Amino acid sequence: MAQTTPNHTQTVSGWAAHDPSGKITPYTFKRRENGKKDVTIKILYCGICHTDLHHVKNDWGITMYPVVPGHEIVGIITKVGSDVTNFKVGDRAGVGCLAATCLNCEYCTDGQENYCDQVQFVYNGIFWDGSITYGGYSEFLSLAMDAAAPLLCAGITVFSPLKDNNLLESSGKRIGVVGLGGLGHIAVKFGKAFGHHVTVISTSPSKEKEAKERLGADDFILSTSADQMQSKKRTLDFILDTVSAHHSLGPILELLKVNGTLVVVGAPDKPVDLPSFPLIFGKRVVKGSMIGSIKETQEMMDVCGKHNIACDIEVVRTSEINDALNRLAKNDVKYRFVIDIAAAKSSKL
Amino acid sequence: MAQTTPNHTQTVSGWAAHDPSGKITPYTFKRRENGKKDVTIKILYCGICHTDLHHVKNDWGITMYPVVPGHEIVGIITKVGSDVTNFKVGDRAGVGCLAATCLNCEYCTDGQENYCDQVQFVYNGIFWDGSITYGGYSEFLSLAMDAAAPLLCAGITVFSPLKDNNLLESSGKRIGVVGLGGLGHIAVKFGKAFGHHVTVISTSPSKEKEAKERLGADDFILSTSADQMQSKKRTLDFILDTVSAHHSLGPILELLKVNGTLVVVGAPDKPVDLPSFPLIFGKRVVKGSMIGSIKETQEMMDVCGKHNIACDIEVVRTSEINDALNRLAKNDVKYRFVIDIAAAKSSKL
Repeated sequence: MAQTTPNHTQTVSGWAAHDPSGKITPYTFKRRENGKKDVTIKILYCGICHTDLHHVKNDWGITMYPVVPGHEIVGIITKVGSDVTNFKVGDRAGVGCLAATCLNCEYCTDGQENYCDQVQFVYNGIFWDGSITYGGYSEFLSLAMDAAAPLLCAGITVFSPLKDNNLLESSGKRIGVVGLGGLGHIAVKFGKAFGHHVTVISTSPSKEKEAKERLGADDFILSTSADQMQSKKRTLDFILDTVSAHHSLGPILELLKVNGTLVVVGAPDKPVDLPSFPLIFGKRVVKGSMIGSIKETQEMMDVCGKHNIACDIEVVRTSEINDALNRLAKNDVKYRFVIDIAAAKSSKL
Repeated sequence: MAQTTPNHTQTVSGWAAHDPSGKITPYTFKRRENGKKDVTIKILYCGICHTDLHHVKNDWGITMYPVVPGHEIVGIITKVGSDVTNFKVGDRAGVGCLAATCLNCEYCTDGQENYCDQVQFVYNGIFWDGSITYGGYSEFLSLAMDAAAPLLCAGITVFSPLKDNNLLESSGKRIGVVGLGGLGHIAVKFGKAFGHHVTVISTSPSKEKEAKERLGADDFILSTSADQMQSKKRTLDFILDTVSAHHSLGPILELLKVNGTLVVVGAPDKPVDLPSFPLIFGKRVVKGSMIGSIKETQEMMDVCGKHNIACDIEVVRTSEINDALNRLAKNDVKYRFVIDIAAAKSSKL
């Protein structure tokens, strides 16, 4: 079996789902010994992403159980291999979604390794040594240095398409954000920090006050209101769609000006509906985007530091993971759950 | 009723569908008198577009019966208004899809009038005077000079996205054409003329020989073959999808390299399926495109002249319109039907 790879010697306490019920329970497993180019991180906090929910419930049909989720990982480095020069014991470190890529293809060599066709993720992936990867719902992580990237999933997932569509350098555009969750709320913060007019588009009337007063959005469109959607047709330059539930792109496309761009970062399990008419009559563009490269992630961290941008979080203990996943499934979180992994150790769950 | 607008004085013989059976029968109606800025064209030939089939059968739920289809119109000018300076009686003229746009908005003033949100088409549209427009399945057409543009629908529909995606200026790209019909076959000709490697993607094995030997395509992928589709993943820079039947964009997107672009010009009546994974994992782009502007249409005509590009056609008589539409519904045409309108008059159908 993959997880019995001989060099896996470090015993780690974690939390795993074992079947599509998605229930998370304590799970002890082994990680590989710290290699020459590796660091080992003692995990302090791990964010809960909607992708975790997709995986524990096997929504996409690709889950290898038991699955230890978690790809928004921060902690302290406890070991460094002999070839590691730019990190030392005691450094803070963050890890995002990527575990391994081929490092040779045109995308890997061009700073777009997240689009490598051999990409493997930090959990539910197959690592170079043939082992299944286990994520950040655990106490320790040993990691090749080139993948020990600083931070997260939610931030880079919205930062990369903003940068890629020239919204980092140019201010004054009219941008829309569909869905005000973990991704959406940070997209609003980026949009405002970069000087744009930001409209939140949501199915929840209660999000209007939140969006405007707490996050500084300029406008709000209730997407279930035909009148509001009609009156805002052809008004936006760019829209970021963060919704992971099944929906039609047609009404959203109508909000874009001619030549406008819609970037999809949510990943519903079923295909979304793409009606031809709003696409064709408006010469509009639908783009996909997936997280970001290591280089972009570093750039995002620098930008976050400059603009003092952070996620709004609710911290939960490991004993509350299942409650948190249930609340996430109902969009009941402002705006990102983060697991306090270090607290688990002290309370000996 | 719209068609009884008082200034409509010219009696014209045409061919119309009267209900969703789509059967075309002779139909006499009135067009407006030739105005100061108008020309009248004696129609000699009119192409049959799949859009005609969508309209006569009311596939899109927007048909105003009786509908006189036809937006690929060529003929001879028989009258010119007093303000018309650049056309004279006896000139050859062509007319495409556009009848009226606002002429004032940012798209009209920027040479993109086909994306004006008040665009009205050459048939099944509402003209400036409130009348319903009737198309080219008829003997005469009186037309405002600014809309009397040279030529067609099929050509400009594929030319515009090729130009818009820098495939007119740059050679050596790997481009795919989905569907080898009226639009697809001219796209292959353009692609080869511009110096690209052209792959035809089709559900019909019989199209391979045609594509390669008659049209000069470099490669052929049978889209119903999982093996062929798998072996050509991530190989193309750009794909033009001309298919008007319902289909999923997922397998087509997989053929594109990362950052590759798929332009959709067919308009199925139901939304197409857009799976998130091939879009997001390949950072791919899906764009819509609709015909082209008057300026682009002139540029296309010049390019066609330079490269000696024309559509491959089957000429039918007006008595054969219904047969032609039935054959078109079964994709049984190489590659575009053109109605010989002038012959009808001499045979007194």
